[in-house]
Amino acid sequence: MRQKKVEELDKLVSSIATAGDKLPTVERRQFLSQGLSMLGGAAAMVAGGTALAATTSKYAPPNVPPWTKTLGQGVIADPYGVPSPFESNVVRRNVPWLTADRIASISFTPLADLKGIITPSGLVFERYHAGRPEIDPDEHHLMIHGMVDRPIILTMDDLMKFPSTSMIRFLECPANGGMEWRGAQMTKLQFTHGMLSCCEWTGVLLSTILAEVGVNKGASWILAEGADGALMSRSIPMEKALDDALIVYAQNGEALRREQGYPIRLINPGWEGNTCIKWLRRLEIGDSPYYQREETSKYTDLMPDGTAREFTFVQESNSVVTTPSPENPLKGKGKYWLEGLAWSGRGKIKAVDVSLDGGINWRPARLTGMIEPRALTRFGMEWDWDGSPALIQSRSIDETGYVQPTYTQLRAVRGSSSIYHKNAIHTWRLHADGSVTNVQIS
Amino acid sequence: MRQKKVEELDKLVSSIATAGDKLPTVERRQFLSQGLSMLGGAAAMVAGGTALAATTSKYAPPNVPPWTKTLGQGVIADPYGVPSPFESNVVRRNVPWLTADRIASISFTPLADLKGIITPSGLVFERYHAGRPEIDPDEHHLMIHGMVDRPIILTMDDLMKFPSTSMIRFLECPANGGMEWRGAQMTKLQFTHGMLSCCEWTGVLLSTILAEVGVNKGASWILAEGADGALMSRSIPMEKALDDALIVYAQNGEALRREQGYPIRLINPGWEGNTCIKWLRRLEIGDSPYYQREETSKYTDLMPDGTAREFTFVQESNSVVTTPSPENPLKGKGKYWLEGLAWSGRGKIKAVDVSLDGGINWRPARLTGMIEPRALTRFGMEWDWDGSPALIQSRSIDETGYVQPTYTQLRAVRGSSSIYHKNAIHTWRLHADGSVTNVQIS
Repeated sequence: MRQKKVEELDKLVSSIATAGDKLPTVERRQFLSQGLSMLGGAAAMVAGGTALAATTSKYAPPNVPPWTKTLGQGVIADPYGVPSPFESNVVRRNVPWLTADRIASISFTPLADLKGIITPSGLVFERYHAGRPEIDPDEHHLMIHGMVDRPIILTMDDLMKFPSTSMIRFLECPANGGMEWRGAQMTKLQFTHGMLSCCEWTGVLLSTILAEVGVNKGASWILAEGADGALMSRSIPMEKALDDALIVYAQNGEALRREQGYPIRLINPGWEGNTCIKWLRRLEIGDSPYYQREETSKYTDLMPDGTAREFTFVQESNSVVTTPSPENPLKGKGKYWLEGLAWSGRGKIKAVDVSLDGGINWRPARLTGMIEPRALTRFGMEWDWDGSPALIQSRSIDETGYVQPTYTQLRAVRGSSSIYHKNAIHTWRLHADGSVTNVQIS
Repeated sequence: MRQKKVEELDKLVSSIATAGDKLPTVERRQFLSQGLSMLGGAAAMVAGGTALAATTSKYAPPNVPPWTKTLGQGVIADPYGVPSPFESNVVRRNVPWLTADRIASISFTPLADLKGIITPSGLVFERYHAGRPEIDPDEHHLMIHGMVDRPIILTMDDLMKFPSTSMIRFLECPANGGMEWRGAQMTKLQFTHGMLSCCEWTGVLLSTILAEVGVNKGASWILAEGADGALMSRSIPMEKALDDALIVYAQNGEALRREQGYPIRLINPGWEGNTCIKWLRRLEIGDSPYYQREETSKYTDLMPDGTAREFTFVQESNSVVTTPSPENPLKGKGKYWLEGLAWSGRGKIKAVDVSLDGGINWRPARLTGMIEPRALTRFGMEWDWDGSPALIQSRSIDETGYVQPTYTQLRAVRGSSSIYHKNAIHTWRLHADGSVTNVQIS
């Protein structure tokens, strides 16, 4: 009997759907929705308002929506494509009160809207110290000098002749979440964690260039300097330069974007974004750090005893739940795919745990997609929400065994005067109405 | 003596560069360029016109270019970022004579300009059969019916509640290179191989949805139907549906682009792009193929004996050199990084060989970056070009042991009447002036 009804339904649906240009009658739609509600108990349970959707939308199949009845846009409407107008809300945003002006400021990646691990280049967060320069690549050069045998000035054409490699790695401003150190509560995920992106970076290993110029004995630090108006500069230890530091000319397959350092930047995988000098024009090899502004008065961590931690390069393991989040509230109880992002500047993510009760009980999430070292890593968990309020947390563990700390653990070591390197476990409060707010619990 | 000169040079360069706002005098620049030409023999050799660049460009460091002396653009000039105006030539293009109109046509990915393996979403090739529909995701539904226990209609919200996963996979039109079957010679890499892209795709495994609806015993094929004006549809074997077929809602981190099927499409990794139905609205489960237009009169391979190979889903292993290529000529003899792309619909690329003499001698290239199954894979090789003409080829081998065939081998099996599945070894003729043309050798 049940099977017979399914067959009847299918035959009808099939005949309507393949007709293609004939709107079904009300009777047909009612039969369909009755069929679904009659047969679709499990479906309605799993997929929320499925049967409802079928009855309320005039475009649910087998009904034929208007875009099926007309020809669409031909090639090439957009020689360089852009997102659907229905996605116009997915953009970088800034926090106007955070900085004195927009020249030395930040825009945030809309993490709540992203899926997978790649950040589209148009949504990678921005951090400027003197604005975004507009550089002609034919007039850009990279000078490598100092404690080397053969100082050199490279054009872009020169750089392209060296062996090239690619890697997917995250990029994070060490001030990410900095507003939360002392208990500030930003209202959105975009602002609590959005100084974070992940791209495929392509370029020449710095070690390849250093082999070319011949590093002198005793050389141990490199000054990297940008061509922006701030001459933004940081000191990089030789160990990192000889490990995985990359002089990058491409991002997600195409030329680096201007806001990311076009035509070239440094990427020190897993390290403070601030060290990944954009618009790179000069590398000076020396035997001690250069103590630039951005590693002395800024980008050091003020400790409880008044001293400052210097050269704290590594972005330690961190994680955040992206759904649910303030931007992704839940719509009624039922089954959901709870998901988020984890990352570690020390290597691969090994595991992520999720708590729904503010850290009392934990259960393992599933790592989905690729697990690359020093890259964003997706985690997810099936969850049947009963409609009760919850305190949602995630806790990452990286391949070194490092476990993401609580606020209490982090402050016990580092106090509460820091701006940088806030990687404490984050809490979202899920309310009974499905809305989500940012709270701090120890 | 030599070391002393280096130190003097460095001291001078350093003092000039850190001054930052002071243009060096002509004397200083001359000294620098003399220093480079005096010391930089190896540098000039490896990096081509390095010393020349230093002497001829007024912006080579330590000179200070204009963009360093002004403030740049603040946040957020572009809430959704765009490429530098200096990259305005990197766009999709079509071949006007190839199709009767632009509604049922193709645009090609500019492969010669791309690096790494990700294709930026704005440059992913397009293939329409009735143009690009403009779909409101709130009004889009996916119906799954036929030989199932629980037919269902899903909204986008419903789909987002299922477990999600991501994978980087290539997407290729089976007609890629089709114009070359009978000896046509397109003038650019963009047109010989540009119906090819590679993205991170995120969505719900089709197997997850099928488990939800309960597939009946005996079901073996699935009809996938799009919501475009062509109701574009293909039959998919159950084996693929239960393996890695993905219902995709995100591409390179963000919502699927309209030209790629917004809000959802099917991705059958490694299979004909044509099977990866865009604007997916309906999946009908049955026990035989549906013999739609696009798998009978089109997308079959006409064999020498007059029969047609049907349901030839897999894109067999293929490769192409991207530098040098018609769009990337060489600028004089010297060292270069020869590079290209390889891929296989059957799994991972195991090796790529390169020939410089039209297939007489081969040497192994290096695989760089990530090696994912059914994804583009980069290869490269250091090459010191002596300025002689060359016939440049690449040959891929995948993890099944399949070796990319020559034209002779391919035509021996499949004749010369096909349009689809042209994966023969490709040849670029490099001329003494560095220019590159497309030739076919057997």
